[in-house]
Amino acid sequence: MTDPKVLASGIAEAAAIDAADPLARFAERFVPNDGVIAYLDGNSLGRPLRVTAERLGAFVADDWGGRLIRAWDEQWMGLPFVLGDRIAAATLGAAPGQTVVADSTTVLLYKLMRAAVDARPGRHEIVLDDDNFPTDRYVAEGIARERGLRIRWLHVDPARGVEPAQAQEAVGPDTALVVLSHVAYRSGFLADADRITRIAHDAGALVLWDLCHSVGSVPIELDDWDVDLAVGCTYKYLNGGPGAPAFGYVARRLQGELEQPVQGWMGARDVFAMGDGFEPGDGMRRFVSGTPPVVGMLAMQDMLALIEEAGMPAIRAKSIALTEFALRQVQERLVPLGVVVATPLAPAERGSHVTVRHPAFRAVTARLWEEGVIPDFRAPDGLRIGLSPLSTTFAELQRGLDAIEAALTDARGDAPGAPQSAGPAGAAGAARASS
Amino acid sequence: MTDPKVLASGIAEAAAIDAADPLARFAERFVPNDGVIAYLDGNSLGRPLRVTAERLGAFVADDWGGRLIRAWDEQWMGLPFVLGDRIAAATLGAAPGQTVVADSTTVLLYKLMRAAVDARPGRHEIVLDDDNFPTDRYVAEGIARERGLRIRWLHVDPARGVEPAQAQEAVGPDTALVVLSHVAYRSGFLADADRITRIAHDAGALVLWDLCHSVGSVPIELDDWDVDLAVGCTYKYLNGGPGAPAFGYVARRLQGELEQPVQGWMGARDVFAMGDGFEPGDGMRRFVSGTPPVVGMLAMQDMLALIEEAGMPAIRAKSIALTEFALRQVQERLVPLGVVVATPLAPAERGSHVTVRHPAFRAVTARLWEEGVIPDFRAPDGLRIGLSPLSTTFAELQRGLDAIEAALTDARGDAPGAPQSAGPAGAAGAARASS
Repeated sequence: MTDPKVLASGIAEAAAIDAADPLARFAERFVPNDGVIAYLDGNSLGRPLRVTAERLGAFVADDWGGRLIRAWDEQWMGLPFVLGDRIAAATLGAAPGQTVVADSTTVLLYKLMRAAVDARPGRHEIVLDDDNFPTDRYVAEGIARERGLRIRWLHVDPARGVEPAQAQEAVGPDTALVVLSHVAYRSGFLADADRITRIAHDAGALVLWDLCHSVGSVPIELDDWDVDLAVGCTYKYLNGGPGAPAFGYVARRLQGELEQPVQGWMGARDVFAMGDGFEPGDGMRRFVSGTPPVVGMLAMQDMLALIEEAGMPAIRAKSIALTEFALRQVQERLVPLGVVVATPLAPAERGSHVTVRHPAFRAVTARLWEEGVIPDFRAPDGLRIGLSPLSTTFAELQRGLDAIEAALTDARGDAPGAPQSAGPAGAAGAARASS
Repeated sequence: MTDPKVLASGIAEAAAIDAADPLARFAERFVPNDGVIAYLDGNSLGRPLRVTAERLGAFVADDWGGRLIRAWDEQWMGLPFVLGDRIAAATLGAAPGQTVVADSTTVLLYKLMRAAVDARPGRHEIVLDDDNFPTDRYVAEGIARERGLRIRWLHVDPARGVEPAQAQEAVGPDTALVVLSHVAYRSGFLADADRITRIAHDAGALVLWDLCHSVGSVPIELDDWDVDLAVGCTYKYLNGGPGAPAFGYVARRLQGELEQPVQGWMGARDVFAMGDGFEPGDGMRRFVSGTPPVVGMLAMQDMLALIEEAGMPAIRAKSIALTEFALRQVQERLVPLGVVVATPLAPAERGSHVTVRHPAFRAVTARLWEEGVIPDFRAPDGLRIGLSPLSTTFAELQRGLDAIEAALTDARGDAPGAPQSAGPAGAAGAARASS
């Protein structure tokens, strides 16, 4: 356990970094939370903005309550496309007309994976890594079963992810589709999407990138990388709220060729013709199925405004600074306690979260949550420290790291007689006091 | 054009009916709207409640902003099932453990229709009526194509719907699934779900009822009727807000037998095991795919509280009184202007909206909307008068009917020299003044 005076000086240093941080002003735009000492889970659920509370109330009174059904024509029918284009411009490096907001991540993955494999008849393999997020794996397995395909599993180092050489070895003339995560949900490994996409294309395969853990924290250039398909989440670094709908990207050159299986009224060429027989709409419309989830699309608009204001290069720079800050202290203070780093050390190889492993982390996370220090736990022994560049401050991260060290020290049985039992000053003490 | 004095006396009579209406007190719980003279489209988008604006703001500040990721464990993970059971108890006549809130209506239709036809291999037909809602038809057509099935179309009278005798004639040993709407979206015809379900079962087929236009306005007894599957909408009579997620019902006896194709992490037996290979969850969990759309599930809770307070028998009684009131005036005042009634006249044969037809109704609806009188238009010539029993008052309906008559009279060219040009008193005048 680090000496309380050292802790206090760590906080002071972190506060000094915050004072020099060009993005520091954004943190105060989020809903304040007195009971939380450090929120280190923005990679799982982004925090709401203050203006979002107002927006939702005003939406009920003015848009829904005031305009009623007329608002569909006035604004809501176009919202999936308007918002898709806005996400594309702010975060995806994608030209308009290729991105739409709809469904859950899982449902969109199903629709776009089905569209892709059905467009490559005669090819029988989906390439996927065995450490991909469960829903990606489950959806692919279901599609493989129903379409008579095989999964070719890439076995990856769980502290890293899929390397180009692995992809090169796996893809071939029988590959219909490659499905990979841009940032791995466990290790935080940042894949070389540009190179892997070219490798897949050279083999004649399509590529779908899962952007859930990268969008809004890592620069993405879908058009430049010539990506075919992508799906991403809006409730992590886009702060859309719990269960906010996903977005999907389909490269313009493929839109006419692909057909997804859930053909609903909102995907038809003429939505209100209500005629006989389904004729798919042009462009991204055909990838829509049901009525747009309007209420779920409100909150992310406030975060997009912040991202537009800050710009992705500055966001990425702060993300790297935060993960560097975390990793340095992890190595100095937690590795000596038996913690294993499960995130790449090179900044260019990671996204915006840091994962560390220790057998005690399940119990440690439960205690930290009670104390108002909130990382998340991923079985069997991973603790993820998520760093959301626009809402996380260095001082907050410092408080979180102090609390993790204290909780782990206690869990290892090092507590008796150590300084913290005398009531340490600083944030680590505050953390325990709040439990 | 009816004389202004007659209009005024009509409003007075309607107000007297409101004064005696045991459900009248509920109307003031909805967000007031000074610019709207009559909202007759609650069958398409229900109005928000006053408490919903507060609920959404408080949700951002307290639940999302305050509890952050911890709220998933504390309340959100269970919400699709808790809310499903609440909808089931209040409106579906269904025991707990058979209903879940998830996805859009279209996506849920796809998942449950696929599950049903895949569970009846060797049967090659889906029975569907040709006036069913477009998304039901489109989804079924897509599934028929991908699974090598046929659609057997029931040709229905568009002023009515599917009769038991028709169903009897259509179903047979090759019928896998019958998909019908409980209340027809155009005519408002209320199908005999009990009898038709028995007819389908006698042929060994499964039945899926689309409850979008009945739930919350018409009594439903899914368990008593021995229904297999149902899907319904929460943004019409359940007032969940634009694009609120749908609900799905799967009879307990079938849950172990059915598998839906979009297998995602939230449908797995152990959601956070994140293990190898998908194992479907028990009960309704296996019909969930992605992360629950929490923000979209908030508003409907306020309307469910109202429905629980009022009770479905009283709601149905008021619905019948409203549709009777509308039809009587339609026959007295609009039929002489060339309007055709396209809704069953017997109360037991209709839901909570009334459809009338006239070639001028597209233009008439556009004018009415500008005036703040809001029915909806369905191509080619249908005007729907939706009557939401807990928010629609008789006086409001009277104002709407007066305005429809006035607009239609003008559209027919009967306007010059008629009394309304002198500035009539009453709501029809007010309606025009607001444009």
